[in-house]
Amino acid sequence: MSDAVTSIKLTSLSSKGGCGCKIGPAELSQVLRNLPKPEHNPNLLVGLDTSDDAGVYKLTDDMALVQTVDFFTPIVDDPYSFGQVAAANALSDVYAMGGKPLTVLNIVAFPIKTLDKAILAEILRGAADKVKEAGATLVGGHSIDDNEPKFGMAVTGIVHPDRVKPNAGAKAGDKLILTKPIGVGILTTSIKKDQLTADEVARVTKVMATLNKTSAEVMERFGDAVHGCTDVTGFGLLGHASELAKGSSVGIRIRRSDVPVLPRVRELAEAGFVPGGTKNNYAHLEGSVTFAAELDQIEQWILCDAVTSGGLLISIDGGQAEALLGELRAAGVEASLIGDVVADHPGHIQVTV
Amino acid sequence: MSDAVTSIKLTSLSSKGGCGCKIGPAELSQVLRNLPKPEHNPNLLVGLDTSDDAGVYKLTDDMALVQTVDFFTPIVDDPYSFGQVAAANALSDVYAMGGKPLTVLNIVAFPIKTLDKAILAEILRGAADKVKEAGATLVGGHSIDDNEPKFGMAVTGIVHPDRVKPNAGAKAGDKLILTKPIGVGILTTSIKKDQLTADEVARVTKVMATLNKTSAEVMERFGDAVHGCTDVTGFGLLGHASELAKGSSVGIRIRRSDVPVLPRVRELAEAGFVPGGTKNNYAHLEGSVTFAAELDQIEQWILCDAVTSGGLLISIDGGQAEALLGELRAAGVEASLIGDVVADHPGHIQVTV
Repeated sequence: MSDAVTSIKLTSLSSKGGCGCKIGPAELSQVLRNLPKPEHNPNLLVGLDTSDDAGVYKLTDDMALVQTVDFFTPIVDDPYSFGQVAAANALSDVYAMGGKPLTVLNIVAFPIKTLDKAILAEILRGAADKVKEAGATLVGGHSIDDNEPKFGMAVTGIVHPDRVKPNAGAKAGDKLILTKPIGVGILTTSIKKDQLTADEVARVTKVMATLNKTSAEVMERFGDAVHGCTDVTGFGLLGHASELAKGSSVGIRIRRSDVPVLPRVRELAEAGFVPGGTKNNYAHLEGSVTFAAELDQIEQWILCDAVTSGGLLISIDGGQAEALLGELRAAGVEASLIGDVVADHPGHIQVTV
Repeated sequence: MSDAVTSIKLTSLSSKGGCGCKIGPAELSQVLRNLPKPEHNPNLLVGLDTSDDAGVYKLTDDMALVQTVDFFTPIVDDPYSFGQVAAANALSDVYAMGGKPLTVLNIVAFPIKTLDKAILAEILRGAADKVKEAGATLVGGHSIDDNEPKFGMAVTGIVHPDRVKPNAGAKAGDKLILTKPIGVGILTTSIKKDQLTADEVARVTKVMATLNKTSAEVMERFGDAVHGCTDVTGFGLLGHASELAKGSSVGIRIRRSDVPVLPRVRELAEAGFVPGGTKNNYAHLEGSVTFAAELDQIEQWILCDAVTSGGLLISIDGGQAEALLGELRAAGVEASLIGDVVADHPGHIQVTV
């Protein structure tokens, strides 16, 4: 590896990092509102209407494609880790729909004239290792010369059409299980400002680079008891929970004390390292979430924190929730039971202490 | 439509336009050279080894996925046209492999804080119209906030595994047919410098926005007589012809006078509007092409000109070439017979006058 690979602070090359550079939901809906509706296609099982993690397109009676695309600017400084995180993040949407990743197209933007090519090679190597771990195959890609480096993937998975796990399936009486801790947006913003120790960087990097593969495989054993699933990414825990609530026309209750948050997140949020994307998520949720009076602005932001490569948020039949939680933990997943699905206040989230 | 949509010169927002912002083949191979080879997967019918237009992954004995991704900065100023061109360009790789486009994921980079959202809506509308014309379905996408606008797509098509048209199939005795005129890179560079009339802009825009759908449908009627196919994009006519020659271990002869070139291309090239990508293509082909002495530097550049959304370059059995040419023209395609495939000088191109 050349010196350039280890000496360049990759996150300093972009103004925003990770899912924080995603265009916000409010702005996106303003753009999409004026577009003509495409014709109905009965093979499109999951499209753009439900804010789902990935599109699902039926090929045959027993096979559907699950498709998603995601890419972003460096979220960590180590290029190999950045490749791993970007790949894990892109692959996650397929797992969140109940699918298995099959093929991958790399998406590369890189300042090829000014930045050492060995950095790009390391990004690609990190991604390739995660693609291999997922059992998927790299089939192609596209690379452009760009001022800010960006990396991501278009991923295609397969799923049985009857076993798709959409946002729209959660039922009153379900329990909500989250498979990774949150606080990633605040921590990665802190990386850019040199606020984390090497161990702290390694901890948040490991969370982001972990595939949701094991979680998805354990979830699959519970079959139809799993009513809905999404993954927590750019719109934050409450943003994605809100999509689940609205998509399924159910209410959601989340207990703040049960939500796992990475170390030092509150301290760093108090010190001002809350990313703009997190504040946008919070603003977008106005009217859709009621917070307990004890939860101050910092706590509210943490629950809306823009995540890169977060965990699965699983809505499972209440009677099966403890069993799923146990099996996830036995498989090494940092899973937590964080709330309930209720019939009251459909489309709305209540956060208790 | 707001005033902003019509008053902003979209091509002025990026330093490079269209396929010209693609990372060059020499630089790309330097990066890829050091990566570990992925394990062999027998389902990967066409992968990264042959510089093909798209990857092909076998799902069943009679169905394979054809997958590709492409996106770039604005190549024309009108946002609706830019969306059309970007979509036609991305869809083209599926046609070039003999496939039919099935699903599309939009890839959006846009300065959402500083540029009118109506511009993005127009880009998406242009793309959606081309996706509809292709008979494909939009299943999702990803949008990031970026300084330079960029747009493109990841496209998935289907093809019968026995009917894939790879770069590696051309045979001595074949004729080469090109389905669109070249000179697009020089003309779009001239657009950025305000050198074209509105009619000239409309002409080159129409060439780029035309789907290769009709060409692919006509080609399909000729079945196994079509031995190889690629589309002409960022690496230019000679760059893609070189991939065909090397992939198929055949020689290629091209007659310059038979290659259709858009109006005023030579004049604008002489005036200095040759894009950097075109010169890179030319440099990369050193040793792989022999030009007739009568062809000066300008002519040589024109044949290497970086194209966005170019035509198909079809290698067909010599006895069927005139029939294919006739049917393409009858269907309204601007097709030309531009050269021959020969057994001599495998991997090498000779350009005659």
